[in-house]
Amino acid sequence: MVERVTILDTTLRDGAQMEGISFSATDKLRIAQKLDELGVAYIEGGWPGSNPKDVAFFERVRDLELRHARIAAFGSTRRAHTAVEDDANVRALVEARTPVAVIVGKASPMHVTEVLGTTLDENLAMIRDTVAYLRAAGREVLFDAEHFFDGYELDAAYALATLRAAAEAGADLVVLCDTNGGALPGAVRRIVTTVRQALPQVALGIHAHNDSGVAVANTLVAVEAGAVHVQGTMNGYGERCGNANLCSVIPSLQLKMGVQALADGNLALLTEASRYVSEVANLRPADHEPYVGRSAFTHKAGLHVNALMKATDSYQHVDPALVGNKMRILVSELAGRSNIVHKLSELAMEVELDADEVRRIAERLKELESQGFQYEGADGSFELLVRRSQPGYRAPFEVLDFLVLVEKRAENSIVAEATVKARVDGEIMHTAAEGDGPVNALDRAMRKALLPFYPELDRVQLTDYKVRILDEKAATAALTRVLIDASDGENSWTTVGCSVNIIEASFQALLDSLELPLLWRTSARG
Amino acid sequence: MVERVTILDTTLRDGAQMEGISFSATDKLRIAQKLDELGVAYIEGGWPGSNPKDVAFFERVRDLELRHARIAAFGSTRRAHTAVEDDANVRALVEARTPVAVIVGKASPMHVTEVLGTTLDENLAMIRDTVAYLRAAGREVLFDAEHFFDGYELDAAYALATLRAAAEAGADLVVLCDTNGGALPGAVRRIVTTVRQALPQVALGIHAHNDSGVAVANTLVAVEAGAVHVQGTMNGYGERCGNANLCSVIPSLQLKMGVQALADGNLALLTEASRYVSEVANLRPADHEPYVGRSAFTHKAGLHVNALMKATDSYQHVDPALVGNKMRILVSELAGRSNIVHKLSELAMEVELDADEVRRIAERLKELESQGFQYEGADGSFELLVRRSQPGYRAPFEVLDFLVLVEKRAENSIVAEATVKARVDGEIMHTAAEGDGPVNALDRAMRKALLPFYPELDRVQLTDYKVRILDEKAATAALTRVLIDASDGENSWTTVGCSVNIIEASFQALLDSLELPLLWRTSARG
Repeated sequence: MVERVTILDTTLRDGAQMEGISFSATDKLRIAQKLDELGVAYIEGGWPGSNPKDVAFFERVRDLELRHARIAAFGSTRRAHTAVEDDANVRALVEARTPVAVIVGKASPMHVTEVLGTTLDENLAMIRDTVAYLRAAGREVLFDAEHFFDGYELDAAYALATLRAAAEAGADLVVLCDTNGGALPGAVRRIVTTVRQALPQVALGIHAHNDSGVAVANTLVAVEAGAVHVQGTMNGYGERCGNANLCSVIPSLQLKMGVQALADGNLALLTEASRYVSEVANLRPADHEPYVGRSAFTHKAGLHVNALMKATDSYQHVDPALVGNKMRILVSELAGRSNIVHKLSELAMEVELDADEVRRIAERLKELESQGFQYEGADGSFELLVRRSQPGYRAPFEVLDFLVLVEKRAENSIVAEATVKARVDGEIMHTAAEGDGPVNALDRAMRKALLPFYPELDRVQLTDYKVRILDEKAATAALTRVLIDASDGENSWTTVGCSVNIIEASFQALLDSLELPLLWRTSARG
Repeated sequence: MVERVTILDTTLRDGAQMEGISFSATDKLRIAQKLDELGVAYIEGGWPGSNPKDVAFFERVRDLELRHARIAAFGSTRRAHTAVEDDANVRALVEARTPVAVIVGKASPMHVTEVLGTTLDENLAMIRDTVAYLRAAGREVLFDAEHFFDGYELDAAYALATLRAAAEAGADLVVLCDTNGGALPGAVRRIVTTVRQALPQVALGIHAHNDSGVAVANTLVAVEAGAVHVQGTMNGYGERCGNANLCSVIPSLQLKMGVQALADGNLALLTEASRYVSEVANLRPADHEPYVGRSAFTHKAGLHVNALMKATDSYQHVDPALVGNKMRILVSELAGRSNIVHKLSELAMEVELDADEVRRIAERLKELESQGFQYEGADGSFELLVRRSQPGYRAPFEVLDFLVLVEKRAENSIVAEATVKARVDGEIMHTAAEGDGPVNALDRAMRKALLPFYPELDRVQLTDYKVRILDEKAATAALTRVLIDASDGENSWTTVGCSVNIIEASFQALLDSLELPLLWRTSARG
């Protein structure tokens, strides 16, 4: 067995193909930063030739200081009968100025003749030319052999010839792709083993899709058979049934097969990274996901828990702490006090808490989370929770009443209006404003009330607004969680609100986003 | 390879352990009926000794006329140093009067000594006595060897001795259980192969959990290695990360490995059975689930779809019709006209469009998508778009005005209220309602206006509500897209709305969701 594999995360390219995902360039940068912290070797950021929006990402990602990961841009081999330097796709790839280029080419003769409509020889030339051109341009080049496993079953000699063409042209790695996700572990083991024997000098990678529900297994089996490179996505995001889930692959590699995949000591960051990515993608974390899911180490009360106490190993396949997850026992959830202390130090708050105060905050947190609030992604509201728990806390303002009205009459365009009554510095401010929607109207009315007292709020911009429906089956009566990001140009913070009434949830998050920066005026921060 | 395996579905026992599932006895009967229609060999209905509610199920299930499946009750071996006929658990199992009994016993020496607190010999006696007693009572007996794979790694000889004890006492099948879900496919292949060699006369089964994300693969690998019996659950439901997903296992067995698992000709019932079970479990169907998920055979528009038309096999690992699923092509701004024509045939609409009309619809679609609407997931709104474009279209109702009000005063709880003025069948209806939030209030006011004319709307339920913020940087002034799923119990449809005002976006989707089913009344559909 190999001792180490390199991981290429393609959440930002293949993962972004999933129905329901739509990343902005900023979302992509935030995820890239997180993946680098996690310690993957490569981050595939997008397809500059096919998606003009990705160009902005590659422009901006150069400003990130990455410690572990190299950024890769994805593209396909040049078109048939075109000089490689004249191919717009390939040019866009070069212009992305990434250290790494991933080139996809056809490995199945059926795809060459029926889909591309060209000859088998021309396809080999397309692979050779494109790989060589990018190598000459100074790129590390990875060759993704599309439909490799299907192609191998059709015509093993031709499938191998495509790999040879890429390797001889200088590809640093050739990656066997199960593009349809139709291969089963037995076939993957057999084919990877044969390819290893046929091309002993070539470093192999695996790229599996989950259409048969075995992408994780296929990836592990390929590594057993000698692959040294693994491609996949966070949480298994991807088109159709998704890609190989790196959050399952990586722990099994490291903990069960003794194969290192992440930077040293980073495996315990996996659960948080998984949830962060789902947060940015605005998808509900999959509770039942192996290793990192909220239910992955959850035990019901009763006999089972007794057994668990007797022999922890006996009902858990690994120690959840190794992947940054926790055991949960459903009857008496233990709120992590040490987590809170850790979090406080992370926020660099100058607040000294004794053990009793930490316990009280833990209890309050648990209560709020059971109501649907969530503080994992909402540092701003967490900091407020702590500050408000301090003796002598004085809120910089207090909202007494509010009213929101949305009205559509006959042919007139829709109107949103809000009124707010607030006590600020002993005075009652009663303001009204229109807005682009009900929450925007509330934001404006709030600012009218606060700006005379706190002109610095002018610098505070709301930069992001996300809505998650928690119990979707309740449809329009469902519990709704709102996250708001705000920034004063220097610091940024995220706040949370939760209610069955989306306006109330939004207002809670809005208030937190305006209150927090006012507290920093007197502290060292900001 | 074996030619056929028997399937034991344990959705009603192991699946019911999942956080969030709570089956009533009636739910269980409905699922049992459906599983029998699907053609599994065994339905494990519950644990009469541990769960008194299950007794009612076993009582009532005897009245079902089953064509394919035998009902199994689950229980554990007798307690240590107790006569088997005095064990309350075993007695409850006999009293369930099922044709089949499944007995779980310890196969790992660590569990015998540390968890059970008895001797290795006594554990073997417990297995022998319990199996023999139930055989004597006329039951077909399946022995589930708990923690078999972990136990085998600890002490292979003892793990094998537990299987031998069960087989010698008359067990019809012994089932190797990966209770922690920690085994990887390589180990499963190796261990099942060795057990086959050690016990050539004994029929083996496999029972896998998904804690490492490889339960499906472990099951397939075990069958390759000679297992003739498979246990799992519909949609992979189960504790922690779930059990082996039969909706993935069965199609791969039948379509890829040539191993029959269901009654003849029944594979095409799988998708409907999967969704039925999720409906009864009150869980959202997993769109990305292999084979049976809504997105499992979904393709985005553009080049890919062209390729798909050229070679259907080239982008699908199996024909979706074989498992009762459908190919979906997402209509989007990139959509060519051929996609629209294809989509219309998919929706089975009796609408004849000439080339000019198709072109006009394509243009309208592009225009709306550039405003932020998205029809990829919103078949219902797409169908309405087409119908409204038809000459002589008459809307079943028309909304003239609406007003929404959300109010919070001092210590009172928040109030949401809506009024609607609509023209229905020539009459003006002016209604008002309160709700859990502004959209819920609008939904209720709309129904008050429409129900007197269209009592069938009573059957229409909104089943899902999703909110996506499109240009998050605009924060509370951002463009908002809302998707609503609705169902009348038979058909379901998804509609879309988009506006900077979240209330307006929600209202658009809401109106479409109510208008569409009213159009079906006069057509063949629904």
